[in-house]
Amino acid sequence: MKRHGFTIGLVGSFALSGIVHYAGAAFIGSTVQFIISAIAIIFVAGFLGKATESVAHYAGERVGGFLNATFGNAAELIISIFLIKDGLFDVVKASITGAIIGNMLLVLGLSVLLGGMKYREQTFNVKLAGHNGSLMLLAVIALFIPAAFTRSLTSNETINLSVVVSLILIVAYLLWLFFSMVTHKDDLTDPVVEHGEAPWSKGRSVFYLILATVMVGFGSEWLVGTLDAFSHQFGLSELFVGAFLIAIVGNAAEHSAAIIMARKNKIGAAIEIAIGSSLQVALFVAPLLVLLSMLFGKTMDLVFTTYELIAIGVAAFIAKSISQDGATTWYEGVLLLVVYVVLGIAFYLV
Amino acid sequence: MKRHGFTIGLVGSFALSGIVHYAGAAFIGSTVQFIISAIAIIFVAGFLGKATESVAHYAGERVGGFLNATFGNAAELIISIFLIKDGLFDVVKASITGAIIGNMLLVLGLSVLLGGMKYREQTFNVKLAGHNGSLMLLAVIALFIPAAFTRSLTSNETINLSVVVSLILIVAYLLWLFFSMVTHKDDLTDPVVEHGEAPWSKGRSVFYLILATVMVGFGSEWLVGTLDAFSHQFGLSELFVGAFLIAIVGNAAEHSAAIIMARKNKIGAAIEIAIGSSLQVALFVAPLLVLLSMLFGKTMDLVFTTYELIAIGVAAFIAKSISQDGATTWYEGVLLLVVYVVLGIAFYLV
Amino acid sequence: MKRHGFTIGLVGSFALSGIVHYAGAAFIGSTVQFIISAIAIIFVAGFLGKATESVAHYAGERVGGFLNATFGNAAELIISIFLIKDGLFDVVKASITGAIIGNMLLVLGLSVLLGGMKYREQTFNVKLAGHNGSLMLLAVIALFIPAAFTRSLTSNETINLSVVVSLILIVAYLLWLFFSMVTHKDDLTDPVVEHGEAPWSKGRSVFYLILATVMVGFGSEWLVGTLDAFSHQFGLSELFVGAFLIAIVGNAAEHSAAIIMARKNKIGAAIEIAIGSSLQVALFVAPLLVLLSMLFGKTMDLVFTTYELIAIGVAAFIAKSISQDGATTWYEGVLLLVVYVVLGIAFYLV
Repeated sequence: MKRHGFTIGLVGSFALSGIVHYAGAAFIGSTVQFIISAIAIIFVAGFLGKATESVAHYAGERVGGFLNATFGNAAELIISIFLIKDGLFDVVKASITGAIIGNMLLVLGLSVLLGGMKYREQTFNVKLAGHNGSLMLLAVIALFIPAAFTRSLTSNETINLSVVVSLILIVAYLLWLFFSMVTHKDDLTDPVVEHGEAPWSKGRSVFYLILATVMVGFGSEWLVGTLDAFSHQFGLSELFVGAFLIAIVGNAAEHSAAIIMARKNKIGAAIEIAIGSSLQVALFVAPLLVLLSMLFGKTMDLVFTTYELIAIGVAAFIAKSISQDGATTWYEGVLLLVVYVVLGIAFYLV
Repeated sequence: MKRHGFTIGLVGSFALSGIVHYAGAAFIGSTVQFIISAIAIIFVAGFLGKATESVAHYAGERVGGFLNATFGNAAELIISIFLIKDGLFDVVKASITGAIIGNMLLVLGLSVLLGGMKYREQTFNVKLAGHNGSLMLLAVIALFIPAAFTRSLTSNETINLSVVVSLILIVAYLLWLFFSMVTHKDDLTDPVVEHGEAPWSKGRSVFYLILATVMVGFGSEWLVGTLDAFSHQFGLSELFVGAFLIAIVGNAAEHSAAIIMARKNKIGAAIEIAIGSSLQVALFVAPLLVLLSMLFGKTMDLVFTTYELIAIGVAAFIAKSISQDGATTWYEGVLLLVVYVVLGIAFYLV
Repeated sequence: MKRHGFTIGLVGSFALSGIVHYAGAAFIGSTVQFIISAIAIIFVAGFLGKATESVAHYAGERVGGFLNATFGNAAELIISIFLIKDGLFDVVKASITGAIIGNMLLVLGLSVLLGGMKYREQTFNVKLAGHNGSLMLLAVIALFIPAAFTRSLTSNETINLSVVVSLILIVAYLLWLFFSMVTHKDDLTDPVVEHGEAPWSKGRSVFYLILATVMVGFGSEWLVGTLDAFSHQFGLSELFVGAFLIAIVGNAAEHSAAIIMARKNKIGAAIEIAIGSSLQVALFVAPLLVLLSMLFGKTMDLVFTTYELIAIGVAAFIAKSISQDGATTWYEGVLLLVVYVVLGIAFYLV
């Protein structure tokens, strides 16, 4: 009965949100459009969380988390490609920044806080924590080097540096997958805890995960569309909208799934979604976008603004510090959220 | 007998120091004034150390350390309020910087070195170490963000950013107390080691702790008064005097108590005093001063100079690195002191 | 039989490289000179690795590693003194930078990668890892402070700051040796694993270690001589040649020995060689060169360029992050190498 109601809400709100997006701008106000799209996203995100959990039931916390992160980022990748085609490099970089810090601070912070309010202390694989910390440092270094050296380089040299660094990062990320999913798989997983049965069969779980991700992709874009009107109305800067508003909505997939996992004491999966997703953006999506931009005639460089680098660096350091002991408490969630809010206010004012 | 001699020395030197301060400048030289005040401070600090230890006997190492740090910072808060009333924001910020790095490097360094010369290795609660490390990072981030963004902001926006960040930090600090003293108290304490009886009763211990703190407050101010003549004579900069000379004297409470605790193998209490005190300054006293300054008509911002931020950042990173394994040795005390001396020389020369 | 062939190759290639260096420039091209010198270095480095291993057999992994690092750096010290005599301070600093990052990233990275391809996980003394991490931070801080404060200082004050910081660092390094070799020796060593007999007697091992180091010193210089022609031909910058090409060759001693130790699962010795060597350069060799430069009339300061400081800082942070858990895997070697390559490309383009 309960599941039936959820299905109706999901399909109904999603359909309505789509109708409003493609046809509705003329006869209803932007506030109503926003509310409809937001309700749809909440339903869709709930669906995605369920699907992730079900896949994790079969494949383990880490793989489930990885699949969630990957499908979640696939949507972002597609949207970014369209932006690159239009030459909107600054918007792409702002949204990359937003995806990284949104996952490391907001998604992780909410998961740790809400999980920690239910369980006194939540633990996860400490070796994975160590590797994640080193990868976060690599991400910061790789995005920092081009910006640090760019003032001594011609713009052509900056492009060359960006392309080569991008190639290296993609190789490093693929080797990381090989390491963590093949050669050292067993060292990096949490002990499997079985809680009852999975709601769906194995095949259906994967299908639902893909379907939910696609729905989140569309739903996010529709919601982002309504945000544009908002941000113009309130005079928000492109940087703030790109790095915070869009990122919060665009990470809906990670939010819902990570929090659901944390509340079920599967903090390992929540970490994999939050940290894993931001690492994937920094070490794979961003470099891939640089390479793809070459196909459209004008190559995007990897030079982020000082403020973006500060945000990424600060997020990585606090997330590394909090996750490195393989245990989390509610207060560590507070710390992550505090840093996110402080950054948000600073970006809002700039 | 021995205690009798101490009491006479304490009362006598303290009284003499007060007389010299309020009446003596006319007939004796500044060097004699300095020596008298310094002797008084040594006696008073010894008294405070004893009182802290006695309170810790009843309340545990952490709470004893926290009370010591809080009473010690109360004096600093009062002095700072007078400076803010006079609009001397730069002096206030220099002394905040000095209190933070003085505690993290000098107090902690001396405690670890002198404790480590007596005991091969001293251990303390490793979970507390992890949380302290994350809080240190938060302190660095929170003081760094306003300075980093200020060049793109109007001075009004900088004030707004400072006020909002201050409110957030105070909430974060109060939540930290709630976390560490209430919800997760038991996870963060060291096992209690009983060494004989306490010298005083519970009530008397607390009374003496308060009395000693007040005496340290007065004694420090009198000593600082004699320092002024010194610094003019030797042409020392305001930054150096504020961040080093005054801080060394002003932290007399923390110094004596922390070292006494370390020498009794209660390094956990020493850490709580040193790190706890600097975190309290960064996350509570400094933000509170920003808010209080609003009452006096002109609001102080949270923008520290580059040199102050370097000092705070460097101190936090080395203190975090050294404390994070929950064990200390004499050489780690050397490392902290080396960084303090290097910073001191750089500040002296600037 | 096999050992006989090695001895012939060693003596022959070394002699040929020397002949080419002192007489050969006229009748053979620079490429042939380079190949001959490179073959000689490979033989000599192999000899040195064997000698280190044999000494480590008698003296333990740490002392063996320390001796290897010290003899390796002795050669660098001698070469640098000649450069200082000629006033080539920038070249000296570039080669100091190169030695630090070459050891922390390339030598350590190759050792960890090649060791990790043979053994699933290699462990070493976790307390040593913690201390090494703190010392790396000290090195970064000590080289960073003079550069950060120099813009507010006269050049005389900068020299004074450099000299005082140098004295402090040397004292700190000597205290470190006292701590790690005397007072806390037992806490920082790895359990000794005996694998068969040592190839040589105790005295012969030490003699061969010294002899091999001298040969590496000469061989490196001859190889560096052939590099000069190369770099002119390809238009490479002095910074790139000094910080990368010369450092790679000049660290031949550390390379061969560390990799050989890692492949024998003695990762503790490899770490000691790589990290120990770079710490020795930062905390002892560089300060000593500042002091020695005073004998030649013009004092070298400790002010490194921004790019050099970025390279050193980045190297220290990633090496600290990877080594702090006392365990290494092949992927951590990849991470170190990735950072080295990214830095190399940036330096090449600048």
